[in-house]
Amino acid sequence: MTDTEKSLDQIAAAAAAAARPFARTSPRERGAALVAVADALEAAGDELVEIAMQETGLTQVRLKGELRRTAWQLRLFADTIVDGGYLDARIDDADPEYVIGPRPDVRRMLEPVGPVLNFAASNFPFAFSVAGGDSAAALAAGCPVIVKAHSGHLELSRRTAEVVSGALREAGMPEGVFQLIEGQQNGVAMLKDERIRAGAFTGSTHVGRMLADIAASRPVPIPFYGELGSVNPVYATYADAALLDAFVASVSGSAGQLCTKPGFLFVPDGADLSAVADAAASVGEHRLLNPGIGRSFAQRRDDVIGAEGATVLAQGEVRVDDAGQTHATPTVVTVDVDTLTENRDALLEESFGPLSVIVRYQDRDALPALHAELFPGNLTSTLHARPEELADGSLAPLVDALAETSGRVLFGGWPTGVSVTQAMQHGGPYPATTSDATSVGTAAITRFLRGVAYQGAPQELLPAPLQDANPWGVPQQRSEAGRSTTWGSFAR
Amino acid sequence: MTDTEKSLDQIAAAAAAAARPFARTSPRERGAALVAVADALEAAGDELVEIAMQETGLTQVRLKGELRRTAWQLRLFADTIVDGGYLDARIDDADPEYVIGPRPDVRRMLEPVGPVLNFAASNFPFAFSVAGGDSAAALAAGCPVIVKAHSGHLELSRRTAEVVSGALREAGMPEGVFQLIEGQQNGVAMLKDERIRAGAFTGSTHVGRMLADIAASRPVPIPFYGELGSVNPVYATYADAALLDAFVASVSGSAGQLCTKPGFLFVPDGADLSAVADAAASVGEHRLLNPGIGRSFAQRRDDVIGAEGATVLAQGEVRVDDAGQTHATPTVVTVDVDTLTENRDALLEESFGPLSVIVRYQDRDALPALHAELFPGNLTSTLHARPEELADGSLAPLVDALAETSGRVLFGGWPTGVSVTQAMQHGGPYPATTSDATSVGTAAITRFLRGVAYQGAPQELLPAPLQDANPWGVPQQRSEAGRSTTWGSFAR
Repeated sequence: MTDTEKSLDQIAAAAAAAARPFARTSPRERGAALVAVADALEAAGDELVEIAMQETGLTQVRLKGELRRTAWQLRLFADTIVDGGYLDARIDDADPEYVIGPRPDVRRMLEPVGPVLNFAASNFPFAFSVAGGDSAAALAAGCPVIVKAHSGHLELSRRTAEVVSGALREAGMPEGVFQLIEGQQNGVAMLKDERIRAGAFTGSTHVGRMLADIAASRPVPIPFYGELGSVNPVYATYADAALLDAFVASVSGSAGQLCTKPGFLFVPDGADLSAVADAAASVGEHRLLNPGIGRSFAQRRDDVIGAEGATVLAQGEVRVDDAGQTHATPTVVTVDVDTLTENRDALLEESFGPLSVIVRYQDRDALPALHAELFPGNLTSTLHARPEELADGSLAPLVDALAETSGRVLFGGWPTGVSVTQAMQHGGPYPATTSDATSVGTAAITRFLRGVAYQGAPQELLPAPLQDANPWGVPQQRSEAGRSTTWGSFAR
Repeated sequence: MTDTEKSLDQIAAAAAAAARPFARTSPRERGAALVAVADALEAAGDELVEIAMQETGLTQVRLKGELRRTAWQLRLFADTIVDGGYLDARIDDADPEYVIGPRPDVRRMLEPVGPVLNFAASNFPFAFSVAGGDSAAALAAGCPVIVKAHSGHLELSRRTAEVVSGALREAGMPEGVFQLIEGQQNGVAMLKDERIRAGAFTGSTHVGRMLADIAASRPVPIPFYGELGSVNPVYATYADAALLDAFVASVSGSAGQLCTKPGFLFVPDGADLSAVADAAASVGEHRLLNPGIGRSFAQRRDDVIGAEGATVLAQGEVRVDDAGQTHATPTVVTVDVDTLTENRDALLEESFGPLSVIVRYQDRDALPALHAELFPGNLTSTLHARPEELADGSLAPLVDALAETSGRVLFGGWPTGVSVTQAMQHGGPYPATTSDATSVGTAAITRFLRGVAYQGAPQELLPAPLQDANPWGVPQQRSEAGRSTTWGSFAR
């Protein structure tokens, strides 16, 4: 869609020109437009899934489910904005008796930040790509979106962008509200454009940090919401065959190419790990997303298998086909805690693909400190324990440590398969994310909003959500006059 | 309190150690502690104001008012947290029929980010300093606070910190929850400490950007909430003596050393500006905060007065006393729009002190584009217009431009004298702030919180706000099972 500097400029100009009219649309209008996009994606579903299968090697079942999720999360955001609660409208009535001096009429709401640049991910060609969560959240907030397509699924990106743009146009949204660019250089150039007001990204720590640094070092820095790397440790107080089967399934789903794949499973020393090999052997070969990811995985797998003190539980296989694509079956190794801490540089890095490390521990009480030291920032941490162990309070310090270092703490279950809900958090301390913000779930919308207050404004010049007449019927939090003298008195 | 690397390490360690116990205090306990701090500050008020007068040259009236505001905003934050609404507790009931696949029980709340480093401002020795808004917001959120004292009021900082620490200790808060450091080098070293999880700052663009760059370039980057520079343009469709009097009062209050001082007043060409000189002549001499600010102001004033095309309306005076302190009366110059745009490098920079520029315009319809070009990021923008002009809609494009570039838009009135309310926004596009977040008002608390989700957790291991029993009685936003099929259907 663009190759030259000139057309990048036109794209940024179109996004900037769309910002004001798009910001002025009502939540209901914007919600209807999001639903129209969802409908259009589903209508084009068969064609899109077919392209995605070719480009990514992911299965039809997985891609169909992902497209359904992608369409549905657009509907969820439509539902989230339609009542206007996300605007956080606050009204201070003028108060001549205000304790610190007469208070004027002040009204504040959240407004869109302006054009957002989204860098699409490789591993979710629908849900974290062109029409994915970051785009849905930014559009819901009222921000024009420019997506930098991922090179791993270019044809799908172009076709998806056509569907999205067409649906938004038919729904009456302004031109320039959704655009696609291609190429890493163009993405970097656009990130530096002063008309871009926020960035979003899902991908590797290396690339994400590079882009975050660019965003922070602009003449006018902008927030950059990057979801970078996570190894998602799992702590188990026991390890039976059912747990190990489920672990292998979580490690190998989508060939382990998920941000929330459990990279480490901690089990008591002496646990019978023989079920791992059987479980891994039952997993069929899966193509990796692209040749580059395949090469990286093969190298990383060699390093982990070859690490001092590592014992292979499931060797797995890596095969490169005539087209240069890599196909793999799961690899699982085991180490003890000392080996892990001594070889942390080699072992702790994220392995993107069907590989995981089982760590044998002897001292359960040492786990909280060990976790805090080794895993300071993750999307998820998980605890598997028997009900009586959860009830007796002995695991509370470990739970504290997990919550302090993770965006989501799971009790039982597995971190892969992130649901999209009002209470989901997909973002944690660095390097899980460059901020602590979530990129999944309805709270993701707050990333693309900023507060604006209007003081002493005549009704007719106030945005609709702040008017006394409240034509959109949004929730308004009102601070009435005459109450400030009582504040802070609850505790006296 | 600290001079050596060793004691900096101890301070960071104490803050880190306090983080978990402080995070576990209930909003009511923390609110009571904030109220205790407010009480203690007011009890020590006479002594504190006396020290502040000596160190800053600000008047007793101003400082007494500022101390009252500082105590009161602690009470306001106590009131804000006590019901737990700020925790944004969200509960997804498990839902086997969830449209995109069975949904687990997921519960999310906002938790404190951990130790916060606050860089105190020079110009508000109470309200934006040791016990000021950033400290109040971080403590309210449950974060240990380390304040880097401003060198301009060191004795006051030490004494205030003693009062704050003592009150927190007596209220039962953990040791290490509030600490003071001194010295720019120590501040920078602490900002780089991995145990610090967020920074806050109020001061110059130069220093603020330097610190923001340090925060962004750490191995583990952290959010840095800096309030840097703002020239707060005011647009008037008329200029009578009353308006010009009020303008001069806003420019010269606290010797113009306020973040929201109007640096530019736009008036119609041909307006009678003779009232400016009279108003300025009636303003007495005021000491500037410290010799460094005095020198910078004198230089800046020379530059503005000497700018090509500038006409002096009020010359003002600058005098340096035997102690090296600078005393000044207001200076006001006038230029036309062309002069301003041609000399923007010389004229547009913020002048910290009693100086402002009146800009004469000929074409009111050109103001929106002019504003967008010259003032892309400010704390405030202000419009003075007659009621009939506000009512006829002709000013809507200007209001749009102001809202897109400012955190607060005023209609009538003057930007100085920021009230502390639930609807206040003190933060706007860069360089007004490094983020768009507010540092004044109850919304400031969100800067020091991050989302954490708990999936499938047993009740006894959930934080109190997420338990079904809800022992703190906080608002819980519940997403019940069986409703997802209807989402996004409103618009069909």
